[in-house]
Amino acid sequence: MNTLKLGIIGAGRIGRVHAASISQRIEQAEVMAIADPDIDEAEKLTRKLGIPIASKDPTDIFNHAEIDAVVICSPTDTHTEYIRACAVQKKHIFCEKPIDLDLDKIRNILEVVKDAGIQMMVGFNRRFDPNFAKIKALVSSGTIGDPQILKITSRDPGPPPPQYILSSGGLFLDMAIHDFDMARFIVQDEVVEVYSKGAVMIDEEIGRMGDIDTAITTLQFKNGAMGVIDNSRKAVYGYDQRLEIFGSGGMAKIDNNLPENHELFDGSGSHRSLPLNFFMERYTESYYLEMVEFVEAILTGKPLSVSGIDGLLSVAIGLAAKKSVLERRPVLIDEIL
Amino acid sequence: MNTLKLGIIGAGRIGRVHAASISQRIEQAEVMAIADPDIDEAEKLTRKLGIPIASKDPTDIFNHAEIDAVVICSPTDTHTEYIRACAVQKKHIFCEKPIDLDLDKIRNILEVVKDAGIQMMVGFNRRFDPNFAKIKALVSSGTIGDPQILKITSRDPGPPPPQYILSSGGLFLDMAIHDFDMARFIVQDEVVEVYSKGAVMIDEEIGRMGDIDTAITTLQFKNGAMGVIDNSRKAVYGYDQRLEIFGSGGMAKIDNNLPENHELFDGSGSHRSLPLNFFMERYTESYYLEMVEFVEAILTGKPLSVSGIDGLLSVAIGLAAKKSVLERRPVLIDEIL
Amino acid sequence: MNTLKLGIIGAGRIGRVHAASISQRIEQAEVMAIADPDIDEAEKLTRKLGIPIASKDPTDIFNHAEIDAVVICSPTDTHTEYIRACAVQKKHIFCEKPIDLDLDKIRNILEVVKDAGIQMMVGFNRRFDPNFAKIKALVSSGTIGDPQILKITSRDPGPPPPQYILSSGGLFLDMAIHDFDMARFIVQDEVVEVYSKGAVMIDEEIGRMGDIDTAITTLQFKNGAMGVIDNSRKAVYGYDQRLEIFGSGGMAKIDNNLPENHELFDGSGSHRSLPLNFFMERYTESYYLEMVEFVEAILTGKPLSVSGIDGLLSVAIGLAAKKSVLERRPVLIDEIL
Amino acid sequence: MNTLKLGIIGAGRIGRVHAASISQRIEQAEVMAIADPDIDEAEKLTRKLGIPIASKDPTDIFNHAEIDAVVICSPTDTHTEYIRACAVQKKHIFCEKPIDLDLDKIRNILEVVKDAGIQMMVGFNRRFDPNFAKIKALVSSGTIGDPQILKITSRDPGPPPPQYILSSGGLFLDMAIHDFDMARFIVQDEVVEVYSKGAVMIDEEIGRMGDIDTAITTLQFKNGAMGVIDNSRKAVYGYDQRLEIFGSGGMAKIDNNLPENHELFDGSGSHRSLPLNFFMERYTESYYLEMVEFVEAILTGKPLSVSGIDGLLSVAIGLAAKKSVLERRPVLIDEIL
Repeated sequence: MNTLKLGIIGAGRIGRVHAASISQRIEQAEVMAIADPDIDEAEKLTRKLGIPIASKDPTDIFNHAEIDAVVICSPTDTHTEYIRACAVQKKHIFCEKPIDLDLDKIRNILEVVKDAGIQMMVGFNRRFDPNFAKIKALVSSGTIGDPQILKITSRDPGPPPPQYILSSGGLFLDMAIHDFDMARFIVQDEVVEVYSKGAVMIDEEIGRMGDIDTAITTLQFKNGAMGVIDNSRKAVYGYDQRLEIFGSGGMAKIDNNLPENHELFDGSGSHRSLPLNFFMERYTESYYLEMVEFVEAILTGKPLSVSGIDGLLSVAIGLAAKKSVLERRPVLIDEIL
Repeated sequence: MNTLKLGIIGAGRIGRVHAASISQRIEQAEVMAIADPDIDEAEKLTRKLGIPIASKDPTDIFNHAEIDAVVICSPTDTHTEYIRACAVQKKHIFCEKPIDLDLDKIRNILEVVKDAGIQMMVGFNRRFDPNFAKIKALVSSGTIGDPQILKITSRDPGPPPPQYILSSGGLFLDMAIHDFDMARFIVQDEVVEVYSKGAVMIDEEIGRMGDIDTAITTLQFKNGAMGVIDNSRKAVYGYDQRLEIFGSGGMAKIDNNLPENHELFDGSGSHRSLPLNFFMERYTESYYLEMVEFVEAILTGKPLSVSGIDGLLSVAIGLAAKKSVLERRPVLIDEIL
Repeated sequence: MNTLKLGIIGAGRIGRVHAASISQRIEQAEVMAIADPDIDEAEKLTRKLGIPIASKDPTDIFNHAEIDAVVICSPTDTHTEYIRACAVQKKHIFCEKPIDLDLDKIRNILEVVKDAGIQMMVGFNRRFDPNFAKIKALVSSGTIGDPQILKITSRDPGPPPPQYILSSGGLFLDMAIHDFDMARFIVQDEVVEVYSKGAVMIDEEIGRMGDIDTAITTLQFKNGAMGVIDNSRKAVYGYDQRLEIFGSGGMAKIDNNLPENHELFDGSGSHRSLPLNFFMERYTESYYLEMVEFVEAILTGKPLSVSGIDGLLSVAIGLAAKKSVLERRPVLIDEIL
Repeated sequence: MNTLKLGIIGAGRIGRVHAASISQRIEQAEVMAIADPDIDEAEKLTRKLGIPIASKDPTDIFNHAEIDAVVICSPTDTHTEYIRACAVQKKHIFCEKPIDLDLDKIRNILEVVKDAGIQMMVGFNRRFDPNFAKIKALVSSGTIGDPQILKITSRDPGPPPPQYILSSGGLFLDMAIHDFDMARFIVQDEVVEVYSKGAVMIDEEIGRMGDIDTAITTLQFKNGAMGVIDNSRKAVYGYDQRLEIFGSGGMAKIDNNLPENHELFDGSGSHRSLPLNFFMERYTESYYLEMVEFVEAILTGKPLSVSGIDGLLSVAIGLAAKKSVLERRPVLIDEIL
């Protein structure tokens, strides 16, 4: 295999990002087909990027003999079905997170993938962001010593529309799930206990839908390290994505990315720009870099750095967090898994 | 009263700081006497600062007719006795924190102070630090809107000697107590629930003495705001004192103070100095400014901004945190008070 | 014209950058041909990007009926000849800086371009960098008031090979020329006088070739503003590109871009990464954005923001700087033009 | 000599600063007398600080048998007279800068001081500021290698009253003189040539008095290093005091000091406070630290780090700068000295 041939399911926001990355920036890969129920969207994309096939039906991708791998960017509730279809056809899989909101369904589908002998990567793109990757490298190299305290700040510029929350699984499963994965990625150990405080501070409609919009989550890792994540659905100053890791040998932290780094001084003080807003601007490069790894790993047989198990465990932490808020007590991951 | 005449009990580290501030930098105040069981220390200090009386016995201060107010810098277990003696002689009181480690004793002594009609200020000096004071002002002015998430990082450069821990009440009562007071000061509301995770990561000797050296504490405020404090007894990069407050209108934060602000660029990157180390360097100005307020308030009859109740509640939060670690569950302040 | 059809002369470093930008990221443009004496390089590039024609001879581009515009990325001494050929064929021009090292040749060729009724843009890419563009916007909006003092720091990570200096025109014409253009761009006024101090501090070989490797240049603008530029061929900490503009209403400045924004704290202080190194990494986005403007302006008839006159004046300032070092006195631009 | 006994001439702003530092913060020194033509000011100060003698006449200080050293804080045009009187009485001298505006008078008085065998320190307090002192240490230790480019930004928050300029010697002698001394201090070498551009941009009244309010000065050092200083009488954002030194081994720089280090994030960006304003706030510590050195050096016989020659050379550079603006050409220091 010299060139990896891919099909993409879903021509929405994230599907378009992956389609463009692969078509324009990754020489060893080629997008053969895009499927989306909205055929107009699919065709618009294939036309723009010179991709051969647009289809309403993902079956056209599963059955396409030349396609080696499938990028699943469809709604969460279709993921396991499409993964299964890929497994049948022995096509490798890149699946956006979360795999599913149900742990049993995730466990089952991971078995299917394993039995099929195919590779599957879950789209935890932030692991590929240069800021977070640098922190991970500092931990791996032992520069900060044994990790003791992890702190993540993760705040969105504004809440999603109410209907999104109904299907997304709520703050812990659509938003904090990235932070749960990041916590495991940075500490390089497993979470064993979760305690979350949640509140509705931004929009009472969110509360009426049974979700929260603000949370502080304390994590206990197996190796003894502890972590804390604070989440908010609305930071008026924009998308706030920071992390700090404190250890026996030092501390490392990262700050937000700005569109440019000017500083203005006037009679009232000094001023800088708002952070990049929103994830499409902030994490642009990481979406590309995760796809580079996926393509290279499939072509060379190298192991993927993000596995289906990572997809499973981030959901488990999210479910533990929900349970913790509900029952107002720390919850063991073992109660959930 | 044109000049406030003071006596100081305790010629140790903090007693010396207050003696120098009052003698040298506060025109409207005068130190008349210093008492310390170690008479040599007391005399060294009175000689250096031109203070009339050095004594082994604080009674000489309580009984001194001209002394208007007493600054209590002796060990914690002497505080309530000395406060009582001041009350009898109708002398105003500045008392170092904590007032005591026992809530009943604190409550009783606050009654005594109240009945005596004297003023008492507790030494939460950090409230007077220019960084923290600025954050408080931004909250008070409504600049950050309604407070939603408070974050405090408070890490010492190294653990105290083991014997100190035995009498100090441990991490939550000798160290985090400052952070508990700061949390109430910034959010301007009362803590109703505490959840703490504690661990021994730095020195097993600390564990053997029944204390912890690392902690993450989640606070629930009455008004709905939430807070998180992380503490460590040992940051290899020095004294780490940061705070962030996030609200509906914005976010404000403060960073560590450095001895100077140079930045060096060489072949390996850019480099800055370690933070000021330790509290005597970091909080120098705040020790002076709290005394300025105390002197001015007593002279003019203005109310003090830090009260005995503040001293009581910070201890209550500390005891709740200890109980939370022990019982592995969130603890209501009402269970403690 | 719906799509702009372009030919590129030169398959070297900068030619490859423009070829990729246009082919992959600019939908309204298409590269039809690439010419380079090294046909292998040209073919490698056309193959990679799916460009129809590779040629050893730029004439194939000038004579190609469908090509609307030419991007000239060949050595400086070929620029005027190729511009002339474009003018004959009425093809619009994007020319890398400098147009030439001889003012008369530049003046003549600008006449030719004008008479041909074609558009020409000179490649001062830094104007399109988000940092510098933000500063320009702050000046244009009047935020900093009337500009009074401009400061530019421009230091390379290492000197070029000696033979490059021989043909490049030296520090003022191959390196500082970008800063001279930036000075005019930010102050939005013309330089009338130049005083430069130059020295050989890094490599004596550079001195033997008649050039300098370190310089401080003071600029006098027509409107009264003053500027200072410091240049060095070798900053051990990498590519240093900063600017500050001070005016009656305030000051604005920009700093270097880093590969990521981590900060590491250990026992010796805090540490950050080196700046992006070198211009290909630092100014990536600006190369793309200047081409976006070029394509859009040609397609729509909008005026270009960088003109041939900009190319002329930056060389004039460079020549004045050289004369100033030689004669150890301030030199008027009118002495040069 | 166990305690240094001092007299202070001048009870103005800077006299009061030194009086307080010595009386309150320096144990080994004692102020015996303060002289000021405005006897009310002198008495106010002696009363406040418990100093024995207030006088209208500095002769009372010169003739006082117990006084070891004199701190001269009177107007510049009285300095040489008072230095002479000190020399006669063999009293050591701390003299505020500038010694005088006339080089011959300075040279003569330095001879007198030398012949008298007394010590004299000139008040270049900024050398003792922790920021600048750190940079000096980095240069001395070789950390930045051989100094190549020095950059100083020195801008005042607002112009002085016009009458001050008439007697002060103008921008180069009352303001930039600090920067000229700093340049010599950091580079640790002598200035041999000066080129200054000056302009009136802030207040035309300043121009009518024959002075300028904005300047850029290029310095050539004997060892080959170059420097540039930009001065403005009015920065709307306050007192701007920065420095950068670039060398063969790296670069180091310092930034302004702020009253506190908060950062506020709201819907328009992030915001910090204005710098400390003005020199009394910014350089508080340095005024104390220079006096510590003076007292200790006189008591122990250690050499002073700032000499009369430093006072002479800073004036010489200032006069060269004035001449350079007038004659629009670089001026050698040898033309002045």
